[in-house]
Amino acid sequence: MHKCKVEVCLTPAVYDTFRNDDAIVVVVDILRATSAICTAFMHGARRIIPVATLEEAQDYKNKGYLVAAERDGIVRDFADFGNSPYNFTPDRIKDKEIVYSTTNGTNTIMMAGHSYRVLIGAYLNHQAITDYIVREKHDLLILCAGWKQKFNLEDTLFAGALAEEVLKSNHFYTMCDSTFASIDLWNMANSNMMEYLEKVAQRHRLKKNGLDDVLEYCHSFNLTDKIPVLEDFYLTQL
Amino acid sequence: MHKCKVEVCLTPAVYDTFRNDDAIVVVVDILRATSAICTAFMHGARRIIPVATLEEAQDYKNKGYLVAAERDGIVRDFADFGNSPYNFTPDRIKDKEIVYSTTNGTNTIMMAGHSYRVLIGAYLNHQAITDYIVREKHDLLILCAGWKQKFNLEDTLFAGALAEEVLKSNHFYTMCDSTFASIDLWNMANSNMMEYLEKVAQRHRLKKNGLDDVLEYCHSFNLTDKIPVLEDFYLTQL
Repeated sequence: MHKCKVEVCLTPAVYDTFRNDDAIVVVVDILRATSAICTAFMHGARRIIPVATLEEAQDYKNKGYLVAAERDGIVRDFADFGNSPYNFTPDRIKDKEIVYSTTNGTNTIMMAGHSYRVLIGAYLNHQAITDYIVREKHDLLILCAGWKQKFNLEDTLFAGALAEEVLKSNHFYTMCDSTFASIDLWNMANSNMMEYLEKVAQRHRLKKNGLDDVLEYCHSFNLTDKIPVLEDFYLTQL
Repeated sequence: MHKCKVEVCLTPAVYDTFRNDDAIVVVVDILRATSAICTAFMHGARRIIPVATLEEAQDYKNKGYLVAAERDGIVRDFADFGNSPYNFTPDRIKDKEIVYSTTNGTNTIMMAGHSYRVLIGAYLNHQAITDYIVREKHDLLILCAGWKQKFNLEDTLFAGALAEEVLKSNHFYTMCDSTFASIDLWNMANSNMMEYLEKVAQRHRLKKNGLDDVLEYCHSFNLTDKIPVLEDFYLTQL
């Protein structure tokens, strides 16, 4: 039986060494971009247009789009709101098209555009995304957005949670050191996640800006069965 | 009290995000370059000249130097020997100058040349290198050679073993996610290292070429108090 491989790319900086046109790529930016995007679709957003630069975001704003834009956790003046999942409320976004630019997440989404499929992963849609991957039987590459090209813990833990679940299907295998490391870290953290997250650098960054209220929410399993997917230049749902 | 920071760079691909001219950089390539280099100095080598390309290695060979050179675990035809620590025996190398080129290790050593000091770390000189770092009180950057720009487990585990020991001194602190991850993985693996290493990709690569006989040796603590250090373009001992 042909088996599909599972790999984890711990930072976009080494994405080229993992490039795989046939893979389903799951982009992960738990605090907070991919958690926010899953929330947006859960609350009825029609489309999200990820843009890499603030200039593009501003151009869209000038054309009348609803714009979510932040850098380093701070909402930009011209934007309608920032990167907290709590901003993506039904009254604001239902049936809307949202332009979205964040520090790490949106660039990472666009770089995988050549792949078989690019999905947005978070704890919020963990089961739905696992089921889809196991059903599709393609190679899986979990792409962590990290922090400014660096490794980060919270994305790695989710990568472990997803890889472990997918590898329970005997259609998948891994020989990838970063996948093993992610799974081991996930199993170490899992039994007491909020305590483990104490040391995560991004938690301290968010806390400094009073934005760490989303920590538990962003680590909640299976609040939605929506799977955001990249189509050309925008995200919609599968 | 001013405290010095400890960071772990999991792959040379993200080295630029960690650059720190004031840091002591410890380069790690446990299987097998830095273990071999520590062995060479333990057995009396005078100098090692790391070269990035096989062409340079061959040029040195033509000039009469003793040359160790491999790619992907395979000794090159023109070389005197390859990358196994077992090759660096006293009868071959005592008081000698050796030119050395490997898949990942030598490039990684040279890239940190701008730093306060570049040391070669392995389990073989773990205590000596810890003592030196704690005494010197500079920032510490542990630079894992990885595998062709990718993360690898065996270098990460050593990074954890070294970071944890240095952080026992209250002159040091860390806020670095990859340092926390390395320490956690080290503590998970440490109690049964040989079993944990079963899954390491590099072990399988070495095994395929009949080169995995060095696994236990490369994970032996404190066989030497020699600390290889980069001076200009060659390695000598501190």
